Amino acid sequence: MLPTLISSPDRAPVEGWRDLAAGLDTARAGAAMHAFIRDLYPICRSITGDGLRETLRRVGQAIPLTLHEVSTGTPAYDWSVPHEWNIRDAYIKNPAGDRIVDFHKSNLHVVNYSVPVHRRMSLAELRPHLHSLPDHPEWVPYRTSYYRDAWGFCLPHRQLLALPEGEYEVCIDSTLAAGSLSYGECLLPGAEAGTVLLSAHACHPALCNDNLSGVALLVALARHLQARPLRYSYRFVFAPGTIGAIVWLSRNESEVQHIRHGLVVACVGDPGPFHYKRSRRGSADIDRAAVRALQDAGRPFEVLDFSPYGYDERQYCSPGFDLPVGSLTRTPHGRFPEYHTSADDPTLVQAEALGDSLAQYLRVLSVLESNRRYRNTNPKCEPQLGRRGLYPLTGGRADSEETELAVLWVLNLSDGRHDLLDICGRSGLSFPVVAGAAHALRQVGLLVPCEPETPTLDDATCDGALIR
Amino acid sequence: MLPTLISSPDRAPVEGWRDLAAGLDTARAGAAMHAFIRDLYPICRSITGDGLRETLRRVGQAIPLTLHEVSTGTPAYDWSVPHEWNIRDAYIKNPAGDRIVDFHKSNLHVVNYSVPVHRRMSLAELRPHLHSLPDHPEWVPYRTSYYRDAWGFCLPHRQLLALPEGEYEVCIDSTLAAGSLSYGECLLPGAEAGTVLLSAHACHPALCNDNLSGVALLVALARHLQARPLRYSYRFVFAPGTIGAIVWLSRNESEVQHIRHGLVVACVGDPGPFHYKRSRRGSADIDRAAVRALQDAGRPFEVLDFSPYGYDERQYCSPGFDLPVGSLTRTPHGRFPEYHTSADDPTLVQAEALGDSLAQYLRVLSVLESNRRYRNTNPKCEPQLGRRGLYPLTGGRADSEETELAVLWVLNLSDGRHDLLDICGRSGLSFPVVAGAAHALRQVGLLVPCEPETPTLDDATCDGALIR
Amino acid sequence: MLPTLISSPDRAPVEGWRDLAAGLDTARAGAAMHAFIRDLYPICRSITGDGLRETLRRVGQAIPLTLHEVSTGTPAYDWSVPHEWNIRDAYIKNPAGDRIVDFHKSNLHVVNYSVPVHRRMSLAELRPHLHSLPDHPEWVPYRTSYYRDAWGFCLPHRQLLALPEGEYEVCIDSTLAAGSLSYGECLLPGAEAGTVLLSAHACHPALCNDNLSGVALLVALARHLQARPLRYSYRFVFAPGTIGAIVWLSRNESEVQHIRHGLVVACVGDPGPFHYKRSRRGSADIDRAAVRALQDAGRPFEVLDFSPYGYDERQYCSPGFDLPVGSLTRTPHGRFPEYHTSADDPTLVQAEALGDSLAQYLRVLSVLESNRRYRNTNPKCEPQLGRRGLYPLTGGRADSEETELAVLWVLNLSDGRHDLLDICGRSGLSFPVVAGAAHALRQVGLLVPCEPETPTLDDATCDGALIR
Repeated sequence: MLPTLISSPDRAPVEGWRDLAAGLDTARAGAAMHAFIRDLYPICRSITGDGLRETLRRVGQAIPLTLHEVSTGTPAYDWSVPHEWNIRDAYIKNPAGDRIVDFHKSNLHVVNYSVPVHRRMSLAELRPHLHSLPDHPEWVPYRTSYYRDAWGFCLPHRQLLALPEGEYEVCIDSTLAAGSLSYGECLLPGAEAGTVLLSAHACHPALCNDNLSGVALLVALARHLQARPLRYSYRFVFAPGTIGAIVWLSRNESEVQHIRHGLVVACVGDPGPFHYKRSRRGSADIDRAAVRALQDAGRPFEVLDFSPYGYDERQYCSPGFDLPVGSLTRTPHGRFPEYHTSADDPTLVQAEALGDSLAQYLRVLSVLESNRRYRNTNPKCEPQLGRRGLYPLTGGRADSEETELAVLWVLNLSDGRHDLLDICGRSGLSFPVVAGAAHALRQVGLLVPCEPETPTLDDATCDGALIR
Repeated sequence: MLPTLISSPDRAPVEGWRDLAAGLDTARAGAAMHAFIRDLYPICRSITGDGLRETLRRVGQAIPLTLHEVSTGTPAYDWSVPHEWNIRDAYIKNPAGDRIVDFHKSNLHVVNYSVPVHRRMSLAELRPHLHSLPDHPEWVPYRTSYYRDAWGFCLPHRQLLALPEGEYEVCIDSTLAAGSLSYGECLLPGAEAGTVLLSAHACHPALCNDNLSGVALLVALARHLQARPLRYSYRFVFAPGTIGAIVWLSRNESEVQHIRHGLVVACVGDPGPFHYKRSRRGSADIDRAAVRALQDAGRPFEVLDFSPYGYDERQYCSPGFDLPVGSLTRTPHGRFPEYHTSADDPTLVQAEALGDSLAQYLRVLSVLESNRRYRNTNPKCEPQLGRRGLYPLTGGRADSEETELAVLWVLNLSDGRHDLLDICGRSGLSFPVVAGAAHALRQVGLLVPCEPETPTLDDATCDGALIR
Repeated sequence: MLPTLISSPDRAPVEGWRDLAAGLDTARAGAAMHAFIRDLYPICRSITGDGLRETLRRVGQAIPLTLHEVSTGTPAYDWSVPHEWNIRDAYIKNPAGDRIVDFHKSNLHVVNYSVPVHRRMSLAELRPHLHSLPDHPEWVPYRTSYYRDAWGFCLPHRQLLALPEGEYEVCIDSTLAAGSLSYGECLLPGAEAGTVLLSAHACHPALCNDNLSGVALLVALARHLQARPLRYSYRFVFAPGTIGAIVWLSRNESEVQHIRHGLVVACVGDPGPFHYKRSRRGSADIDRAAVRALQDAGRPFEVLDFSPYGYDERQYCSPGFDLPVGSLTRTPHGRFPEYHTSADDPTLVQAEALGDSLAQYLRVLSVLESNRRYRNTNPKCEPQLGRRGLYPLTGGRADSEETELAVLWVLNLSDGRHDLLDICGRSGLSFPVVAGAAHALRQVGLLVPCEPETPTLDDATCDGALIR
């Protein structure tokens, strides 16, 4: 075989594109993530309170985290920070006085944000406060009562059906009082302007795929990137769903304009195939990068159009922000039967899947980090590649190497209007091959990067790039 | 089941969108239309003359109609109003003196606009003046000789083949003389600027689907709308084909600029599936509304691209006007074998189909009436829907209601750039559901309509709507 | 049947569009092209030297050709004209002294551009200089050593395997010295501004489909067009591949801005189906014209997207030029097994295929010559076609003629924004039918051409064409 670009004999092998997943021990990373999930699992989280606070404290032991507390009543657009909810105990005692439903056995047993109650009542009186899943009679559902004065218990349907008549004692030893909403942020600074937002909701109690898997992946991602030089700054947000994202946005409007790309992280621990949900924009760089990285991975995946239903992309992609934020999950919310039930437990999420998700996130970020628009410095006719070691040395052969093709594609389309993702799309070549060719051409001075994009996110024209 | 938007317990059910077809008794309407067709059937219409005039008179008995008479010779762009044609009698007598072809049995027997003739001639001399349909030997074809000095007869092919040699007497007791071209207009005024043009050709003699069905549908439509408050003004035009539309356009150039939407009505009485022919623009609001209403109806239909062949959309969509006028038919012209033959008689059109067509027209107009671009008054993050009664009251459930989804879609896309039809397209939800959500949001002040579009039909920017 | 547009009885038949292929005797033209290929076959061409010069001399005997000589060392963008290569003899003698590889038997035996050598050496020493095709053991490959100081021989793999050990005499009696690069140009002037570039590489030695077929086709095309009035000027370029195109571009930058359309010609002699490779622009007029002409021909063909690999479209479509130049071939380079081997000989190319290719090129050029944007002089409503002889004389028939439809389409879309190719695309009618209708409408004054496009190739607005 003839020498090809990458192994050209008279040059050191070019480094190619910078794959952030290089060197990742996915098995080890996956096992660590799973251990972290098991560690957080018993904590009773909610959208405020000590369970959330303790979770963020443990995240802060793993990565540098800034903790924020926002007082009850603080306005945030159409919302305000609610009373802080804390709970010490909750149970139902049957007529015989046995604790038949016990918060200490599973924090899912109490409707999250229940107001305090301690009363005796008949089954008929109690019944409207009980939630179960007739289709999954052994599972306990996850229910919340945010923004309402209500209380309730969740239990297996089988158990509910067997409840005898009689007087029950119900107790929810909770408080709803002025306090604060907690969220944590980790910022890894980058060399150029622009931020990548990575956001996970951290408010769900004993539920693993949704969303301790997201919390664990963000922690692992931050640890992995921490050690590496980065082009963009990375902002990791751990906050309660909906109200947390709304509060974060309301306190970070000046930051928002720097966000170039973003991903909402959830449901990354089950063994299902990847699903990428597009941003509201539909073809933002993050959308193109995520789809390209999934294509290059060569495994089945599904792309979903944006919808205003789901996780905190609902807030990031609200029309007043319209941020380029997508969501990369394995099986999406609501599509696995264990979703929002006690069956979303540590056995549903798998170390192997978690490690694999981390690697896929790194591949997406690698594309973002390397993607640029370049300008061919020799735009009139092809440059002489042979004397620069970028061409097979014997002409006239009927086939041609993929890397040689990539060099020609990058030269041809680097007119300041096409970025490397465009070149992948038009050439059918993978991002690593195209980015490797761009790197090699840059080394020999045939390619220069266009000016960094302006912070407005508009499709800035590459200065001097339009050649004719 | 949980309460949903429409039946939210603490609010009166929202009225949803205003469906103009609500309350329509389609069976009764269809029967009335069929009776009207049978009433008009025997009249010998043409592009001018007393048959057309009598038809308009009967239309004017059903709805308020302004009758216009335009004198012979009046110029209209490349055309001028022709001589008025009237006919009292026409026949062919065979050598034995029997009336074998008789205008009084069917007005299709005479070539429409034939010059007068009264002569005796051999079969050989007569033969070039006889028209028949070899493929349908029992049917009489419909033929015209506009803008030429010619005469002729139409008869069943079977009869033509059986004609013996001998001397025939032919008589067409017609006149072609200075007179006028008649057309009628009905205007229903609306609350906002902008007109909807609804146009039917009224020149065909004893033919029912093409186009007494169109005349009858327009009459029924005007009667139905007359009683209702309307957003747009509606202009119903009953005119002879081609020359009538041309004359109407030439006399209404200042009116034309107010036309926002339009439909040419024909062939709405056969039982075939609906066909929508796009306007020349291809994606005008009328095109989007008609297709959406057909999709929402949930029955098979066909969408045809514009072509400059057909009915008076040829004139309305000529390049000098390029009006947003499509055509909604059942089986289109030329696609049913009875087209332009004596078989297009009162048995071809059916009361049920006519009523159903009227309902479908009303559904299309309902979409036009309700479609708007709105602006979300709380564009940054989602508003709190719960406290406005627009949200299921217990969170955490895995499924979500269609109406809740519609509320989220309308909020997300109401940035002044998307109208409700865009939101249907992107969400996959039906127009009634989306319009109902918009109505509910408007009620609680979360949505305000963008300014009405300017009369230029340009894609006016919604004032203040671009949020960022 | 009723009279139709073309044979309307009261008018002379309109001439329709001007088909440049009309009157072509494809059999005779194909035979002449094949004879020309056989004549050129034995000459040892390269990117410089007397073989190329002699080839251009013979082209100049057939058509008026301007010969250019560009001195060694002349810079051309990133390149410079190399030393001129000439060769008188080359051979390998086996240990017994027999000429076992002989340049005079086939000029493919020597690696093109080999430096001189005359030595005795062992088989082991000789081996790295020998090239063969293991998959086609009877064929001699075509190899070059441009821009490197190297030499070599090509021979059948079967022969290579049978070489005995021993001392061999190798001789390449070549010179590499200051001289010049030759290319030839033929210019046929046209009536309007704008040039069509037709380019063939003329540097390959004894290879027929690639690219003596291209040279022969260009010669036949120039001879055919020479006798005819032309709208565009036609510039035929016969130059060595890559360096020749680069040198031509560097010396013709002022000419380049006049190029409206272009085709790179190669591989037009095999019997395979046509393949059209789009220009970098993808939908330039030449792309639309070539695809339309192939569609109209009614035979299978394939359209390939642009890629920066191939023939001299690589240079013409480099980002600094981005010329509207496509490539029309039969089987493309690299897709036939004989490509770049001794099997690409006069038996691979066929007179019939050559003649057919010439006719197809003429059909593409006919589309380019006739394609225009027109303006309907009667844009408001249809004009009266009947009194101009452009309409069937008896109305009311259910069918309609293709030519009548074409007349209506041309009138409807001739608003200064659509050219005839657009009208073909939207109507589904063939270019001859649409162009014939345009011709007829022009004859009666209903159509006027928009101003010729400006030389900038921008989508110039048709002066006064936007009617509203």
